[in-house]
Parts: sequence; C-alpha cells; structure tokens
Amino acid sequence: MNQATDIGQRIMQRADELALCTETPGMLTRTYLSAAHRNAAELLAQWMRDAGMNVRRDVAGNVIGRYEGIAPDAPALLTGSHFDTVRNAGKYDGNLGILLPIACVAEWHRQGRRFPFAIEVIGFAEEEGVRFKATLLGSRALAGNFDMAVLNRHDAQGSTMREAMSAVGLDANTLPQAAYPREKALAYLEVHIEQGPVLLDEQLPVGVVTAISGASRFCINVNGLAGHAGTVPMDSRRDAAMAAAEIGLYIEKRCSGVPGLVGTVGQFDVPDGAANVIPGKAVFTIDIRAETDDVRLAAVRDVLDEMKRIAARRRVTLEINQTHEASSVPCASWLQDQLAQAIAGLGMRVRRLPSGAGHDAMAVAALTDVAMLFVRCGNGGISHHPDECMSADDARVAADIFSRFVEHFAEP
Amino acid sequence: MNQATDIGQRIMQRADELALCTETPGMLTRTYLSAAHRNAAELLAQWMRDAGMNVRRDVAGNVIGRYEGIAPDAPALLTGSHFDTVRNAGKYDGNLGILLPIACVAEWHRQGRRFPFAIEVIGFAEEEGVRFKATLLGSRALAGNFDMAVLNRHDAQGSTMREAMSAVGLDANTLPQAAYPREKALAYLEVHIEQGPVLLDEQLPVGVVTAISGASRFCINVNGLAGHAGTVPMDSRRDAAMAAAEIGLYIEKRCSGVPGLVGTVGQFDVPDGAANVIPGKAVFTIDIRAETDDVRLAAVRDVLDEMKRIAARRRVTLEINQTHEASSVPCASWLQDQLAQAIAGLGMRVRRLPSGAGHDAMAVAALTDVAMLFVRCGNGGISHHPDECMSADDARVAADIFSRFVEHFAEP
Repeated sequence: MNQATDIGQRIMQRADELALCTETPGMLTRTYLSAAHRNAAELLAQWMRDAGMNVRRDVAGNVIGRYEGIAPDAPALLTGSHFDTVRNAGKYDGNLGILLPIACVAEWHRQGRRFPFAIEVIGFAEEEGVRFKATLLGSRALAGNFDMAVLNRHDAQGSTMREAMSAVGLDANTLPQAAYPREKALAYLEVHIEQGPVLLDEQLPVGVVTAISGASRFCINVNGLAGHAGTVPMDSRRDAAMAAAEIGLYIEKRCSGVPGLVGTVGQFDVPDGAANVIPGKAVFTIDIRAETDDVRLAAVRDVLDEMKRIAARRRVTLEINQTHEASSVPCASWLQDQLAQAIAGLGMRVRRLPSGAGHDAMAVAALTDVAMLFVRCGNGGISHHPDECMSADDARVAADIFSRFVEHFAEP
Repeated sequence: MNQATDIGQRIMQRADELALCTETPGMLTRTYLSAAHRNAAELLAQWMRDAGMNVRRDVAGNVIGRYEGIAPDAPALLTGSHFDTVRNAGKYDGNLGILLPIACVAEWHRQGRRFPFAIEVIGFAEEEGVRFKATLLGSRALAGNFDMAVLNRHDAQGSTMREAMSAVGLDANTLPQAAYPREKALAYLEVHIEQGPVLLDEQLPVGVVTAISGASRFCINVNGLAGHAGTVPMDSRRDAAMAAAEIGLYIEKRCSGVPGLVGTVGQFDVPDGAANVIPGKAVFTIDIRAETDDVRLAAVRDVLDEMKRIAARRRVTLEINQTHEASSVPCASWLQDQLAQAIAGLGMRVRRLPSGAGHDAMAVAALTDVAMLFVRCGNGGISHHPDECMSADDARVAADIFSRFVEHFAEP
C-alpha cells in the first residue's frame, strides 16, 4: 500500500477490496461462515498482521488483532465492528469499524508508538442475523452471553448453526470460551457509519452516540368486515385498511417532534385485497424507538391507547402481538466526553445523537463501558443498500478523531 | 313441487336446488360453460317449461323462456338475471332474478292467465367475468353489443372463449345473431338482491333502483424513499405508505356524507415491506362510484387534486393509472314509477336507491328501457360469499310486487 496516500483513501481502498469477498458476484452479500465470509476473515487477519498485530480467531469466528501496549499482557482498549453483511449490502456498514482502527494501528506501528494499554481490533463474525435469524452472534460470544439455543436454528439450506460451525472447524460447545476476560477490557469504542441523514443534513463529518435506542415492535391484525365496494354506504363500513391507515398516521404524528423518537409502519398489507372489495382484514407492523426508555414507553402507551380508540370507533377488532422489546443501551458518559474532546480538538462542532439502529456495542455493553463514533453517510443516509456511501475525507477525519481518542485515552 | 307451499318458500327451495350445480363440492362456484353451468341451464330450462314457457337457448348460452301473450308473437316484457357465479358464491346473486319470475309465470300459467304482451324470462349465461375476465357476456350478446375481441381471451387452462364455446356446440361466429330484436322488447325489469345493507338497515324488504352507479378505478404507485426505521428522523422521511394512508383517509372523508357516493381503497400493499424499513414504495387502488356521473367525477377530481398535494408535501411521487371508467346507467323513470306503485299498492314505503354494483341491466339498457327491483339481504348485506342470505318472506313480497308490476304494466 502506497504510504503517500492519505489514511482516508487507504481505508476506502480497503473497503473496496474487502467488498470483493461476496457470495453473489456484482453485489455484496457476506453471511456468517460462507466462503466469502471466510475469505474476508483471512484478508482482515492479514491486514492486522501487516499493522503489527498478533491475530487470533475465537470459536465464534471473530477475528481479533492485538497491538500490544508498552508492557506485555496489559488490559486492552477494545474496538471493532462486524464483517458480515445483509444481502445486497453497502461496503461500509460494519466493515468501516474494523478497517479504520487497523489503519490507525498501522500508523502507530510504523512510528513505533505504543500505549500503556493494548489495543484490540475485533472483526465480529456476525451481527446482521441474515443466516440464522439471530443477531449480534459475534459480540454476544465475546460478551459471554451467547444464547446457546440459537445453535439449533436452521439456515435456508436446513443446516443448524452448530453444523455450519462444525463444517468450518469451529466447535460450538466451546463457545463460552470466547467470553472476553472482564478485567482485561478497559472500554469499547465502535466506529460506524450513521446509516441515517442527521450528520449529512447538519454538514458534520462525525457525531458522538449518546445511546443505542431501545425498540418496541408489534405486528397488528385488524379485523373489519369485507363488503362490496359499490353497495355498502360509507357510514356502514368496517374497513380494516382505513383503520390501519388512521393508526399509522397517528403513530407518525405521535413520534414526530420528539428528539430521538421514531415510529414506523414498515409492513402494511390487505391480504387478498381486490379493487372492488372493502378490506375486511389488514396487517401492519409498528416499530417505535427512542434514545431513552421513558420516551419510548410513553409513546408505545399512547399508540396502544389511541389504536384501541380508533378500533372501537370504526367497529373493527385488533390482534396486537408484540414481536420485540429491547431497552436503550446508553453510551458511557466518560467515553462520550473523551470522544467529544477529540472532536473539539480538531475544531469541529460536537454533535451528540442517539443510534436508532442496533450495533455490536449493544452486546459488548454487557462486558465493558461502550462508546460509538458515527461517521457521516452520503446519499441521504441510505444504508443496507449498494448506494450506501461515505467520503475518503470523512474517513480521514474519523481516523484522526479515533487516533486522538486513543492517544489521550484515560480511565475514568 | 307442493303447491300448498308459499311462493317465497318455493323460490328459496329452488335456489337451494340450483346451488347444487357447482364445480366444487361444498361451495358454490359455477363459471361460464362449465359442466355445473350446463347442468344449471338444463334445470332452469326444465323449470321454465314446467311454468308453461317455450324455451330456447341462444348462441351465448343464455336460457330464454317465453310465456306467450294473448296474441302470438307479441312484443315481450323482458326480465331475468345471470346464473353464473363468482367462486365460493352465495345462492341468490343473479339466480333470484331468474327463479322469481319463473315462479310468478308458473302461477299465471296455473290460472290460465295471459297478458297483452309476452313475458320472456332470461337466464343470462355470464355476468361475473370469472372465467374470461370480461363481464356481462350474456346480456351484451342479447343487447347486440358483444365485443368480439373477448372471444380470444384465455381462461386459466389456456382455452380461448371461442374454443370453450365450440366445445359445448356454440358457434362464436354467430354471436351477433343473439341480438334481441329491438322492436320486440317493451322493457326490462331485473330482480336482484341488494348486495348491501341499506334495505336491511331501514327494515324494508324491497327497493326501487334509480340508477346503476358509474365507476372510476385507479391503481396508484407511490414512490418515496426507503430508509432505516431507527435512523431516519421523522421530519426527514419520504414514507410511501403514510402518503398512501393519508390519501386513503381523504378518499374516505370526501366520499362520506354524499348520498349515492362511495369511495374504496381495496388494495393496499407495501411491496417487500419489513418491520424495520421505512416504506419506499406503496401500491393501492381507488374505486369511486356514484349514482350520477356529475357527483362521481367531482369526487374523482378532488381526490386527484388532493392526492397530488399530499404527494408534494410528503416529497413522494405518484404513478396514477386509471383502470376502469363507466358512466352511470339510469333506470327509466316510467318503469321506476310503475314499480313504486306496485310497492305502494302493498302498503309499503317506497325506498329508491342506486345500485353500486354492476348488473345485466347495465348492458340491456342499450336495447331497451330498464328497471331493477332490489330485495333485502341478511347478514349485513354480505354477498359474493356463502354467508349471502335472504328470507322466504322477502322472496314472497318481491314476487307479489313483480306480479303486480306485470299485471299493471303499461307502456309509457
């Protein structure tokens, strides 16, 4: 690699190179333990070694590079993210949080610079949940709270996770051994693209994550009464779709104007709908997230109440199934502050924002204090899509901030 | 048949018997020219002969029973409806309008009573459009405006309509010969279940149809911007489903409170929607009907205008495809008045109402003046469904009114 190029460009080049490890030519798809996934692990390990790190692979398939501190066997500052992807993914989600620290460590290695602590860069093997419909597998193994029941889940080809691990020489029974020794972890910092438009809209390259939002999800079945679109007068109708539409617009309104709160109806369907039939059934989902649990739970309560009022007025019935509930995971304020100092040190405005998406840091929080540095996305903030993008300039700025954070890192 | 039973009960018994002619045991499905359809035609022809009628079959498969007037070859008062059904149908839609006049003619035949005009009871072979996705085939053939292009349409098994006719001995090339001689038709009266709840709600057994509503139908594609449900703030969203929801509720509101006007969003879907993704696309249909074209077209205009305003405000784009446009078909006022006199003659309140659904009378209106007598449905007015029902009492009342109408029938 040409050392004359800027660190941001080097990170972008490696993101391009890593994206070639894919299951489907012409698009990026890299699911847990596929051949493409194993190739990516190999490439990351090589780059870690090139950066002066000792590399190990844990039983979950996580790739861990250790850059020793001044004294051997010192506790480590942990950083990283995941290298699995969704189907037809972008190149930066997850991968950036591995490639960026590798590039920074390479610089320190070139300068012969070491710190009073070790640095461990972790490529988490699985976060997205594509293959086995369970997320955060790599970071949960590291945090020591892997749910062993997940090992019996099947992929689309009918292999259990246990079998898929065995096929690549990983012994699922030893998964508890992947747990990171708590006393050896100083903190965890994850660099990640924002996957949203906030930094883009405010023309800021980076932001400090305050918390990973908690989420409540529901699937709602609305039962009204089907009828002929021509013969049933408007005031005699029990239209399931219009009840769902009114509920959807209430959710949108209730979640607007409250910082850090979002509410989404992602699925909305009239099963077997026909143009000339009043919908007797409708199915929709609700996803409500907020930076703090109080804000989220208040919104959920209001939505459930209003939903029932709308249903009663429209004479439809609701089947309400909660499908997901996760509390907010706050980022440690002492780590946020040190990140903020690194940003301010470069003369930039410090923007704090919650992460509406889940990240490995959520799982690692069970092991040690966590922080996240968000990097601006282009293209309106689109992610989980080939149009996901970021700039080499932002990669350089983020690498500068990451380096400053590490260089000034102090335990609380 | 036991003559001691009431005419209403006899009609109901025959509706039960006719419903046994079905393609699918345990439910009623009788599509054009199926074996079940041919059996039903045979049964109707037998009942017509039993009632003293001469029966002929035209080239479209319509079954026509003629009860001669006092003088032979007199012009005829036409009546009837269709004997094909939707899939998993009710027993009365269409069939009632054939069985009821047969029962009335049987009474006159028993009494030896004849009129200055003939009566022709027509079992239309096809109205619902299930097999070849084209409706009103029987009544269009009779009216002389059958669209010969329909003959090349395929059913689900790949047979053209022409081939299906040929297989049962009908020569499609001679379809124009099914046209009824205009000078021989005095008027057309169709008896039909309401297929809606208006008469039920007003506790009336019958109603006089004022017009068969015109209809405008559209299929709308909404294009917004997909995004992560957790990371895109509410005010940055371009949610296609919420735009569709707002448009749907506007349609509902605009079409409420105007007599004879209805508006329906029958299909509503977020293609490939996921709980954690802001909908980038939504697809929905609009069906707007009204008794008069002015009322319908004004509503359509307002809906299109408001739809565009909503789309602009929400920064989504619309693809608007009109899929259907049919003008209102008024029922002749002189026939309405004679029906009203028959109803009032029995001491009942005369309720006039439009028909939101299409009927054979729409097509026959091209041949002669038409009228319709609606009969109350039970079960909230449900139709096109096995729960469709009506009472023997209402069948008797409707037969009384039909008989009085015929007995007092006078040309304008």
